[in-house]
Amino acid sequence: MNIILIETLEIQDDRVLLADRRAKHLIKVLQVQLGDTVRIGIIDGPKGCGKVVAFCARFPFQVELDVEFAADMAEKPPIDLLLALPRPIMLRRIFSQAAALGVGTIFITNAQRVEKSFWSATLLNEEEYRPHLLQGLEQAVDTRVPEVSIYERFKPFIEDVLPGRIAQYSHLLIAHPDAPGTLKTVITERPGRILLAVGPEGGWIDYEIARFAECGFAAFSLGERILKVDTAVVALHGRLSERRESFS
Amino acid sequence: MNIILIETLEIQDDRVLLADRRAKHLIKVLQVQLGDTVRIGIIDGPKGCGKVVAFCARFPFQVELDVEFAADMAEKPPIDLLLALPRPIMLRRIFSQAAALGVGTIFITNAQRVEKSFWSATLLNEEEYRPHLLQGLEQAVDTRVPEVSIYERFKPFIEDVLPGRIAQYSHLLIAHPDAPGTLKTVITERPGRILLAVGPEGGWIDYEIARFAECGFAAFSLGERILKVDTAVVALHGRLSERRESFS
Repeated sequence: MNIILIETLEIQDDRVLLADRRAKHLIKVLQVQLGDTVRIGIIDGPKGCGKVVAFCARFPFQVELDVEFAADMAEKPPIDLLLALPRPIMLRRIFSQAAALGVGTIFITNAQRVEKSFWSATLLNEEEYRPHLLQGLEQAVDTRVPEVSIYERFKPFIEDVLPGRIAQYSHLLIAHPDAPGTLKTVITERPGRILLAVGPEGGWIDYEIARFAECGFAAFSLGERILKVDTAVVALHGRLSERRESFS
Repeated sequence: MNIILIETLEIQDDRVLLADRRAKHLIKVLQVQLGDTVRIGIIDGPKGCGKVVAFCARFPFQVELDVEFAADMAEKPPIDLLLALPRPIMLRRIFSQAAALGVGTIFITNAQRVEKSFWSATLLNEEEYRPHLLQGLEQAVDTRVPEVSIYERFKPFIEDVLPGRIAQYSHLLIAHPDAPGTLKTVITERPGRILLAVGPEGGWIDYEIARFAECGFAAFSLGERILKVDTAVVALHGRLSERRESFS
């Protein structure tokens, strides 16, 4: 936990009283003392700092902070993800890693090669996945929670939802092992947001690739290696970020 | 398992008899039939294909293959890693992900902020970590096992071992949050091998950074986000690969 995240509602007269795992972390791991300041952030709001004005160092752990925040919050990360629903254990890791790396929106939809049982995962409920997103933000010192949009049916998603969302992107990219080119063949120096689509284990089927192509997605391959989806998401985020930063 | 890996010793007269999890995978997951061919590779040797000439579809599962191999094996990946010993659960994931992404050598050494208890992890024994490396290779369709070199003491490693190994690299890089520049400020268009050093949770201490600098390592930062070591390794591998491919 490299930043303490709080909800706006927890602030009263520039004070916050923590009495859960955050308080325990401050006491047991950071071993705060009176007068210490710690990094703090409002979820989907600005970052700031908190000064310890009171604490209880044993169970039930409590820490009271005087808090102060910056005027602005960080910009939305320029990369969004579109995933064919991965295996829940993998999706959990993707949620926290994507939040840590910085992702604006995570679209999740179906694909032919997604196992049907994955759709009954409890992880698809916001109260289940949100803690994993927050964990990633706490790790990476960020406050902006990635938006998660879940569409269980592929066709309505690609025909009705996606067309309304793609105008905001300068790049629509789809990772696909059979594509002839690599990332550098499909990415140009245009600034703007990137939407990256990553398929299920076993890949997208031709029909799906064709539908994405109709929407304007450019396919690229990472080479001969076949990666697990969670590894691919992080490696691709790194590649896209590096490309993007090399233009600026 | 996207490739069946075998040891040279298992080949007798161009035949291989599988009778373990590999046989079970071929039968239960790939549902092979007589005459089917499957991807196969010799560990630290070439890839090839195996034709199913006999099998037993129930316990104990057995598959017999007629095998044929290419003359050459793939080149050594151009990126090596140098890690401060991570938490075992993280190291396990790094082993398989690094093998999947492609890494030549993984050096592991100590650092001030490495928890002492990590050094007693059973995972540091070759018979414990090798399966994780093989798992990564099976995923990525590769045969070359990353070399793992473990040095429990930092000073002898950096003074006596590293100097003899660094001549082979065109880039010595160290990820460090406090460094002023990003990757693009320290990487140039020289071809050749890259050695990437990644610190422990909490980062390298100044003394360690200074010692690496004396060896010729250039420090760079990934920006403000603090990543877990396993996420950082994959994201950095992606960034380095993208940079490297953009030169070629």
